[in-house]
Amino acid sequence: MLDAKDPIGRLIGELSRLPGVGEKTAARLAYHILRQPKALARNLANALNDVCDKVRLCSICQNLTADDPCFYCSDAKRDPAVVCVVESVQALRAIDRTNEFRGRFHVLHGALSPLDGIGPDDLHIGELMTRLKSGEVREVICALNPTIEGDATTLYLQRLVAPLGIRLTRLAHGVAVGSDLEYTDQATLVRALSGRREV
Amino acid sequence: MLDAKDPIGRLIGELSRLPGVGEKTAARLAYHILRQPKALARNLANALNDVCDKVRLCSICQNLTADDPCFYCSDAKRDPAVVCVVESVQALRAIDRTNEFRGRFHVLHGALSPLDGIGPDDLHIGELMTRLKSGEVREVICALNPTIEGDATTLYLQRLVAPLGIRLTRLAHGVAVGSDLEYTDQATLVRALSGRREV
Repeated sequence: MLDAKDPIGRLIGELSRLPGVGEKTAARLAYHILRQPKALARNLANALNDVCDKVRLCSICQNLTADDPCFYCSDAKRDPAVVCVVESVQALRAIDRTNEFRGRFHVLHGALSPLDGIGPDDLHIGELMTRLKSGEVREVICALNPTIEGDATTLYLQRLVAPLGIRLTRLAHGVAVGSDLEYTDQATLVRALSGRREV
Repeated sequence: MLDAKDPIGRLIGELSRLPGVGEKTAARLAYHILRQPKALARNLANALNDVCDKVRLCSICQNLTADDPCFYCSDAKRDPAVVCVVESVQALRAIDRTNEFRGRFHVLHGALSPLDGIGPDDLHIGELMTRLKSGEVREVICALNPTIEGDATTLYLQRLVAPLGIRLTRLAHGVAVGSDLEYTDQATLVRALSGRREV
């Protein structure tokens, strides 16, 4: 009875396209929305249309933004000589939340993954190289995920950046703050040992 | 940086109003939506606006519907002499999915709950009584949740329906099909015993 022509059935169908939302959860959400004042649904619909209309990639750093250049690229207080390369906008936000990094960003929107068919041309590496060749950048920080794909991307970037004479660094690997050595995995402990520092 | 003026921040804010969606899940959903083709967000926005524009209560049974009277009330093959009273549209759908019930429905949109301040006037009981007084109905099936609120509502309806000379029944309580007696709660076993039937 709840077919695609029925507005409720359609809403359930559209909600169930979201990640982690099955048909039962979608139905629960849809009936919740129907029980609430219409403003809830209207505001959500407006917000969805708004991101479609306004959000695009920053022409400099490829961050998702409504203004071009984005908040970070247009902030004169941020050091344009240091560029932190991240896989995703979420990673950018995580680093920004630390309030410790005052340089610029560059979002690759992924990492090299030959198994998934993601090569260098699928990432925003060309835009990064254009930025680096402008001569303003002195250091590139690879803040990619500590995965096979992230590490492969870092090594790939190393090959590209080395000839430019720009310093290329990566995030320190080691024991997470507040964690327990007993439960820290072996690979992390190996990295923590090899990366040990003077007290 | 992600304030209410930023479209992404607004989308995250609106998504986090949904039940079971915290800020982290909302951010995950928002960035998923941003990575997908715009049709995903547009279709969801249209579906949301559509339910706002088109969905209302059926003037007969109070089911949520785009057409008035609703699918069930306008189905001539359904017996108008039997009305199944449910708390919610979800309960209506659950009963309809059994394909065993061929009567009509009536949705109360809740159950009596003095502690939550929900009295008879907050439910669609008046509309039910109008239907019953038309003289067409011979049986009312109370398919309310087996909770204190549902049982209280059934008893309340009994007081109202008895003077009309209409048969009032309720769903059978007992052991769920496929369950294990060892793990069936005491209250259910008591009801299953007292409601035992000839083999």
